Order: sequence, then C-alpha cells, then structure tokens
Amino acid sequence: MREVCVIGIGQTPIGELWEMSLRDLGAAALRSAAQDAGIEQVDALYVANMLAPRLSNQAHLGALIADFVGWRGIEATTVEAACASGGAAFQTAVRAIASGMIDVAAVCGVEKMTDATTGPVTSALATAADADFEGAHGASFVALNALVMRRYMYEYRVPHEAFGPFSINAHQNAVNNPNAMFRKAISEKVYNNAPMIADPINLYDSSPICDGAAAIILCSLEMAHDLSKNTPIRVLASATATDSLDLANRRDMLALEAARMSAAKAYDRAKLAPSNIDVFEVHDAFSIMAALSLEAAGFAERGKGTYLAQDGEITVGGRVPISTMGGLKGRGHPVGATGVYELVDLITQLRGEAGANQVPNAAIGMSQNIGGTGATVVTHILGREN
Amino acid sequence: MREVCVIGIGQTPIGELWEMSLRDLGAAALRSAAQDAGIEQVDALYVANMLAPRLSNQAHLGALIADFVGWRGIEATTVEAACASGGAAFQTAVRAIASGMIDVAAVCGVEKMTDATTGPVTSALATAADADFEGAHGASFVALNALVMRRYMYEYRVPHEAFGPFSINAHQNAVNNPNAMFRKAISEKVYNNAPMIADPINLYDSSPICDGAAAIILCSLEMAHDLSKNTPIRVLASATATDSLDLANRRDMLALEAARMSAAKAYDRAKLAPSNIDVFEVHDAFSIMAALSLEAAGFAERGKGTYLAQDGEITVGGRVPISTMGGLKGRGHPVGATGVYELVDLITQLRGEAGANQVPNAAIGMSQNIGGTGATVVTHILGREN
Repeated sequence: MREVCVIGIGQTPIGELWEMSLRDLGAAALRSAAQDAGIEQVDALYVANMLAPRLSNQAHLGALIADFVGWRGIEATTVEAACASGGAAFQTAVRAIASGMIDVAAVCGVEKMTDATTGPVTSALATAADADFEGAHGASFVALNALVMRRYMYEYRVPHEAFGPFSINAHQNAVNNPNAMFRKAISEKVYNNAPMIADPINLYDSSPICDGAAAIILCSLEMAHDLSKNTPIRVLASATATDSLDLANRRDMLALEAARMSAAKAYDRAKLAPSNIDVFEVHDAFSIMAALSLEAAGFAERGKGTYLAQDGEITVGGRVPISTMGGLKGRGHPVGATGVYELVDLITQLRGEAGANQVPNAAIGMSQNIGGTGATVVTHILGREN
Repeated sequence: MREVCVIGIGQTPIGELWEMSLRDLGAAALRSAAQDAGIEQVDALYVANMLAPRLSNQAHLGALIADFVGWRGIEATTVEAACASGGAAFQTAVRAIASGMIDVAAVCGVEKMTDATTGPVTSALATAADADFEGAHGASFVALNALVMRRYMYEYRVPHEAFGPFSINAHQNAVNNPNAMFRKAISEKVYNNAPMIADPINLYDSSPICDGAAAIILCSLEMAHDLSKNTPIRVLASATATDSLDLANRRDMLALEAARMSAAKAYDRAKLAPSNIDVFEVHDAFSIMAALSLEAAGFAERGKGTYLAQDGEITVGGRVPISTMGGLKGRGHPVGATGVYELVDLITQLRGEAGANQVPNAAIGMSQNIGGTGATVVTHILGREN
C-alpha cells in the first residue's frame, strides 16, 4: 500500500454566488489547488456533490468539470453520501493512489444551492434522510436535527444556552477567514435572542444555504517532493462507517454510532488516540451535531459535549480546537462540498498557514464529515511531515 | 497492488417492478450475490445509481441499502457517472481492494425508473447531458442520440436498416435470459416497421424505461479460495476516460473518443488486444452506441460497425459476441444499474454459466459502460482463472 499525501488545496469563497455556475465554481477551486501544488495535470478527478441533479438539472459532474477545467479525457466520477460526499470523495482518491493505479488525483467538492431551477432547497436537502419513512411525513432535515437536539436537552438536562459557545466560536473564527460566508462575531446575547428555525434550533444553531467549491490535489508520498514544492501533508487514516438513515431505527439516537465507529477505525489505523489530535474539524451543520461529534470521537463523555465548549476548550487556543476557520456555521455549508472544505481548513492548519486562527504547533489533525442525521460518517486523520 | 477478483454475482429481473422499492431492489440483488459467493458480510458497499434523487426523492443510497440488507455500520457510498455509474462503482471497489484497505466489497447497481414521484423520467435522464448547453434547449437524451445516429448515417452512407442486426441479436439473446425484460425475438420486418421515437431512432433502436438491481462481490485474489467455492473471475483491467458532456464540443462526434481511450488504457494494462476478447458486453442503449463502441474498442474500422453486425459476427457464435444476455435493448437498461448488469452478464459467460447463450470457451471478456452520449466510458477486462 502506497502512502498518500496532499500537495495542493484551493477553494472559492462561500456565499450566494449568483454569478457563478456549478462548473465555474468547480473549475475555480481546482485551478487554485493545481496552482498551489504547482502542477498542471492530474490522472483522475473525484467530484463530491449532493444536490446538482435536483437543483441544477445536472448529474454527471465528473466529466463536466474535468472538461471545463481543461483536463478532458481523464478518469472522472462523482461520489455521493449526502452531506458526507466530500469526505467520501477524498477517501476514493486516497484509495486510488494507495492502489498504485492512479498517481495524481484531484478531489473537488462543489455545491450550488442558490439559483435553484427545480423546486425548493428544503425538499432537496430532505433526500439525505429516509424518503419513505421520514420525508414522506414531511420531516425536513432541520426538523430531524431539532428532534435530536430536543431529546439531548431533555435526556442530559442541558439548556439551550449551553450550545451558544459552538456558534460563538465558529463565528469568531470566521472573522479572519476571507473565504467564510459570515465574517462577523456574535455575542451570547445575540445567540440567545435569535429567531427559531425549528424549535429548539435557532438561526445561529443552523448553517446557511450557500454556494461554494473546494479542491485538493493528492499524490503518493514518494512522488510528492518531485511534483511540488509544498510540504506534503500525509493521510494517516481514512475511515467510513454508516448507520440507519432514519432516526427511528437508530439503536440510540444520541450516540452518533457511525461517528464513533468511524473515529475508532481511524484512530486504530493511525495508531493514535484523541489526545494526539491537535485540531478537529467537526461537522457543525447544527450545534447539536458538534456536541455529538465531540462525544463520539472521544473528546467528551456522553452528554458532556457542551461542557467542553463552555469551558473554552474548543477555541483556537483550547484543548480541542474545532471549526477553526469558521466551520459549517460561520464559513458556510455548501453540502456536497463541505467535507472537502473541512479538509482544506485542516490542511491549512497543518501547514501553519491559518494566520490569526493558527492552532499553535498543529501537527496532527482530524476531520469528521457527517451525512444525513449521522447515517454516514467519514473520518480522516492527517499529519504534517516531520 | 493486490490482484482483485469477483466471487459472487446477483441480480433481480428487470421490468416495471411496481411492487419493489429502491431498497427492496438493492437488497434483493445483494442478498443473491452474497449467497452466490457463500459469504454473509462485506467490508464496504459501493452503490451505483443515477436517478434516485430525482425520481424517488432519495439520495444517500449507500447507507440506506447497507442498513436494509443487514450490513449496518459498514463503509458505504454512492458512485455516479450518469449511465456509466455501474462501471464506475465497480472500479471504486476494485481500487479499494487493490489498495489493501478493504478486503471484501460489494457493488450494487440499482435504479427505479417507474413509480416516479417527481416529474417525468425524460427530464431526469437529460441530467446526463449538459444542462446549460443541451438540456436548456429542450434536447432530450434520445434526441441527442438521434443527432449522432443521423450524422453517422449521412457521413458513412449507412441506411437505417443496417442497424437492425444489433436489435435483432439483442432480442434473440434476451429470449433465454430469465432476468431480461423483453424475452421475445424480433424479425427484420418488425425492426424496419417499428414506430419512430426520435427520427432516426425507432422503438427497437432504443432501450426501455425499467427497474432493476444487480450486485457483485469482490475480494483479493489471495482471499478468494478461502472465502468462496466459486471459481474466481479476475479483474485484468479497469479504465475510465471522459469527453465533453455536450456533443457540440466534441472534437469528432462520431469518434466516441472516451471509449477509444478507455479501451486503449484497458488493453494496455491487461497486455491484451481486441483479438484476445472472447465476449464483449457493449452499452447498446441505442443501436448507434453499439456501432460506435465496436469501432472505438478496435473491433471494426470507423464507419464499419454495422458491417460486423450484418455479417453475423456479433452473435453468440460469431467473432465478437455482444449483448449476449440481451444487452441494454433486450435485457433492459435501468440506467445507474446497467454497468453492473453488463459485468454480471460477462461474469456469467466467463464462468460458463450462460446456458443456451454460452459463448464457447469464453476465457477473457470485456465490458464497456457509457455515460451520457459518450462523456464517460468505463472499460473492464475480466478473465477466468486458468
């Protein structure tokens, strides 16, 4: 098995990018990543996307974007696992290179949620949940997360205010990220007085509808120094686990079982423990998911995720810095692209290029990309070359 | 790099399966494949699907089907490349095993085109083409293929009747396939007098709207004999190439450039030539694609694909047997599942289990799975263990 590493990253700013189409976004991120790596050609492209067939009448994004970026002819496909598509596409690239069949691969997470030509975004997002047993009853995706959050608050006697630090930390970190959608800090008061979206999820518990693309160039470790002047960032572990799509069939709605299994597999493969992780990019699509992810990945005991946040441990200077460039809440959550953005942010930290948000001495980091209400979880552990 | 092989295959009949949902279809094919292999568990599942988000309000099929078949927790994702999704998902599985990171993988191609809850199938199929430059003008997928066929007939002075043998051969072979949708032979007269769908594509040039699922179990060659009593079928080559999505941007509309490149890469990796291929499962979604695929893969010169058919060389007893279990025309074309059906039919031949349709001494076979009007092509070469 060949060792795999990252030699280039790129991204577009996240926002309501009315002037950019799906292919514009994908190509912009890929060109930026290729330029960063100092390469002009790749052998394969793996596109992560969830909503294009629904919102842009466009499937078949692999060939489309490969052609538009100037790489006509290369191997190209799309990987989908709802909001975990980005992590899954990165894993596909890691495997392709590790197998020895592909030398240089690009991953591009792209999503265009504005300008939808075919119906509401809410219905499209609901395709991440079980269409027959949840969607058919009219349960939107935010409503399902609200059920989980309400249950968590009841079960562990945690008040809504306890989730505030997740959103406040994410927004604070987004201020210094030029690619973030919301570059403004929020106070505890603003959080507590925000309008409800789906009780108990309020405006600041919920990530935005937005457009964006992020890209990563990977190659085998032995080729890295010949191909690129960048310090390679090694892929130490890549692990996916799944659970039932519908909440009603989970063995334990608050356990985020797929996140636990995915993290356990990743720690095992990398021969590392939570204490070795210097920075953790969580999937804070909703505040409740940040808390559950911290618990499932072994950073907090069950029901204690919010305590970690309240103690300031999740900030850039804390014990487990999360959402360091703004997370899904502050940076934005273009769903199929999010897993790639998480990895780009993580790699930025491991390269020591995170500027004002730099986690001191970040050498090993983890990202956790969640699809649906926890039905697919992809965990990656990356490390700086010593 | 580990050698990869197939140890199990399964499928549902193809048809208008009103009583089966997406998950029913996927699970039925997977159970059948697992039973055929004699295994009960896999490490990963790669689902091939194109239309579920559009037609069934369901994305996130990896976790959904893994759970429903009884494999909750395993790695699972969806791979999409329009009608080439099946080939692309199989390639993802091959890479995962070759990398050493996954030992036993399942591939499941599944598509449910009937019972659509969200608009016409024709609009959903058009997402395989370029939404901005083709779909926006109202070009349906069959209309785009009709343009190619009309150009071919004009350029090479080939009459419509010359395509008849493709459809007649496919229907003849479907008669003996219990899983085929159309188990009846057609005559030359029936072909020539069929109603037009999109001139010059008539009813018998065009594959049907249908439901179905096919599945394959793969593992490393060294594990095969311990895991299964079946004779392993080796994956000798797996290659993908792409072209522009829109026809107008092709360098040559009649060259099927991605098929040529994909086949060339596959021959190169397997160290084989067209003359070594005993059976060739082509992507005859439309008769014109069968002709172009034969030319691109080196079995006929440019413009001579129909001659091969007219000479009887494409029948089970011919030099290049194609569509041996009915192909997309006779067996059926549940789009995202088709690439897996092609491989299942090929493996059936290489195992010598094709019954009345058995190609004598079939030891090496090829499948070519085409997405869009030729924008993604995945070629696989498989071989019987000697």
